[in-house]
Amino acid sequence: MRKIIVHKYGGTSVENIKKMKNIAKRVINLYNEGNSIVLVISAMGKTTDHLVEMARAITENPDRRELDMLISTGEQVSVSLMSIIFKSLGYDSISLTGYQAGIVTSSDYNKGKIEDIDISKIEKYLQEKKIVIVAGFQGRTEEGDITTLGRGGSDTTAVALAAKLQSKCEIYTDVDGIYAVDPRKLGKARLLSEISYDEMMELSNLGAKVMEMRSVEMGKTFQVPIHIGNSVTGKIGTIIKDVDQLMEKKVITGLATESNVSMVTITDILYCSGDIYKIFNLLAEGEINIDMISQTAPIDGKINVSFSTTSLDSNRLKSLLKDYSAHKLYVEENMTKISVVGIGMADQSGVASKLFSIFEDIGIYFKQVTTSEISISFIVNNEDSHILIEEISKAFDLSDD
Amino acid sequence: MRKIIVHKYGGTSVENIKKMKNIAKRVINLYNEGNSIVLVISAMGKTTDHLVEMARAITENPDRRELDMLISTGEQVSVSLMSIIFKSLGYDSISLTGYQAGIVTSSDYNKGKIEDIDISKIEKYLQEKKIVIVAGFQGRTEEGDITTLGRGGSDTTAVALAAKLQSKCEIYTDVDGIYAVDPRKLGKARLLSEISYDEMMELSNLGAKVMEMRSVEMGKTFQVPIHIGNSVTGKIGTIIKDVDQLMEKKVITGLATESNVSMVTITDILYCSGDIYKIFNLLAEGEINIDMISQTAPIDGKINVSFSTTSLDSNRLKSLLKDYSAHKLYVEENMTKISVVGIGMADQSGVASKLFSIFEDIGIYFKQVTTSEISISFIVNNEDSHILIEEISKAFDLSDD
Repeated sequence: MRKIIVHKYGGTSVENIKKMKNIAKRVINLYNEGNSIVLVISAMGKTTDHLVEMARAITENPDRRELDMLISTGEQVSVSLMSIIFKSLGYDSISLTGYQAGIVTSSDYNKGKIEDIDISKIEKYLQEKKIVIVAGFQGRTEEGDITTLGRGGSDTTAVALAAKLQSKCEIYTDVDGIYAVDPRKLGKARLLSEISYDEMMELSNLGAKVMEMRSVEMGKTFQVPIHIGNSVTGKIGTIIKDVDQLMEKKVITGLATESNVSMVTITDILYCSGDIYKIFNLLAEGEINIDMISQTAPIDGKINVSFSTTSLDSNRLKSLLKDYSAHKLYVEENMTKISVVGIGMADQSGVASKLFSIFEDIGIYFKQVTTSEISISFIVNNEDSHILIEEISKAFDLSDD
Repeated sequence: MRKIIVHKYGGTSVENIKKMKNIAKRVINLYNEGNSIVLVISAMGKTTDHLVEMARAITENPDRRELDMLISTGEQVSVSLMSIIFKSLGYDSISLTGYQAGIVTSSDYNKGKIEDIDISKIEKYLQEKKIVIVAGFQGRTEEGDITTLGRGGSDTTAVALAAKLQSKCEIYTDVDGIYAVDPRKLGKARLLSEISYDEMMELSNLGAKVMEMRSVEMGKTFQVPIHIGNSVTGKIGTIIKDVDQLMEKKVITGLATESNVSMVTITDILYCSGDIYKIFNLLAEGEINIDMISQTAPIDGKINVSFSTTSLDSNRLKSLLKDYSAHKLYVEENMTKISVVGIGMADQSGVASKLFSIFEDIGIYFKQVTTSEISISFIVNNEDSHILIEEISKAFDLSDD
């Protein structure tokens, strides 16, 4: 029985024929070593963006079913070209759309959820020793309409296939793996050889861009270790796996940052008036994405609330809240959210106080703080973020220094 | 019960969003008049050519299954954009790939033959009063692989759908309809209001470019009258129909020409040696397409044979036949084939002699002549073709003069 490997490459890795041929060579080596390969690839380079632009040239809000029909052609082009490459090199291969690969999703167009995969066709082709190339990011509804899976969809395709095929899952990206800190923020950021699903999800959620939440969540649900590697070198840097299989549980595994957030504070809200709910309703209707929320206890029947949000137009915010002019509204822009994540935090006390002492030593005050089971997030001024990232990384062993 | 119309537009008619919007408006008018519309469209402009070029950049002979997978994305893009247009104008529509439309073909990739259409999905959508947009030129095998139908494939899709839906079939092109003579060859060529399937097939076969044989043949098999119109004006010029439904049976309906053919004559072939078969075998292996063939009766145990072919490299021909150097080989280039076609020819004698007298009057000699049930073809020098086309058209009422 040959070992099956699901091997996934993103759009940048297949943006031209030359890059595709490099991937083909690597896959052929694995194949010749006796492995069965399921190759999942995305659309070439910026193809998906270009297709979306075509639709938006017609209307700002293209019909979602038809948009999926349109953009799914991107991966169909890349998988068929990839198969033409394998065939031209003398290797038997077959390309499959999400539809043909049996990937059945919910009918949430543009963000379909994989409900089931009928892998009989893939298994048949693997038995025939074909290299199977599956279009990432797409599937079909039970009724036979084409869907796409939304952001990070090709990763989700790869993890779901690996779960069904009970195979290894390797995802190649344009970085070496998962770093404790974004290397653009910290030059000597440490490459993590392993990280738990939960930590990875928390980091993704808090701003780390390498993996989308959904694919990691699926990995956790089906207990599929996800190997993250560099598409150029082919070397695996990080394995995302179950917490029980981690070699060592660190107090803090990684740090995520999000720059240019705004912090909004509304004071003097009448405590018992229900105004607080109305305010958040108005913000939701205005599609203002609220992140960290803190609320103080009522004093003299009034409360204050602070929340962070992506950088926004404070005039728009004021106009949304204009009917609640009783309140005072403060908006602070150019802030950075710094979050530290670690599975060990749940058991170990003293992480917060260790962090607070770092702030004290440097002489920086955070504007807001929130905590979850395995993370702590702070809001600070943009200009204070650099020194804080360095000092926290040093204190919690996140850099290679 | 609303009347169903299958409405087909080619690649030039959908080459940009503006042109697509014009088609949408015309379809909406028909829809608002109470018709059910099935719109069949091709890929936008030169899309298919560009996709083929991508594949050929990898290898001269891309795998045929994968090539179909690749080029079928062209129509998928055009149908989804078209549906986005209808939706943006407030009309309910749905786009379908050939696969989704239930078009099952043989597994002859790049030239699949439609074997059956499961129209249940289309019928359901029509009942829901949706405008149904079907990708022309494509289908799927029983196993679920994507196929394309080859040249003129979108016309075939339209005719096949009309046959199954028992509906009207309208095919829009960049000309007004079928002309008795190619208007580029004869300025005042007459537009034919009707033509029989057989005449149309014979004309297509003999070089007329408007319709491919296969779609006309399908129209004949399923008795679907094919309405040919101008995609810009929307006006129907010609109806291709059964001979029994023609208003009048003309002796000669149309004239087709093919320029720059070569005429090859091989003399002194030993009659009983089997050489004649060997020669044609060699030509077939050399992929030399032979058209009109004439052979003289044996004299002194030797025969002469002439055939016409598309313009060719006479050196290549000589090298193919070099082992048969006993023969003499003559190649005349820059010839034109003129063919006249008419269903009435079968019943009426004297057509050939009337044609011969035209040649005699102008003082031109043809190099070769062949006949079929409803056509006569001549080979003449390129420079003689113009006056002949004029005189034949005048004599048989093919021009509007």
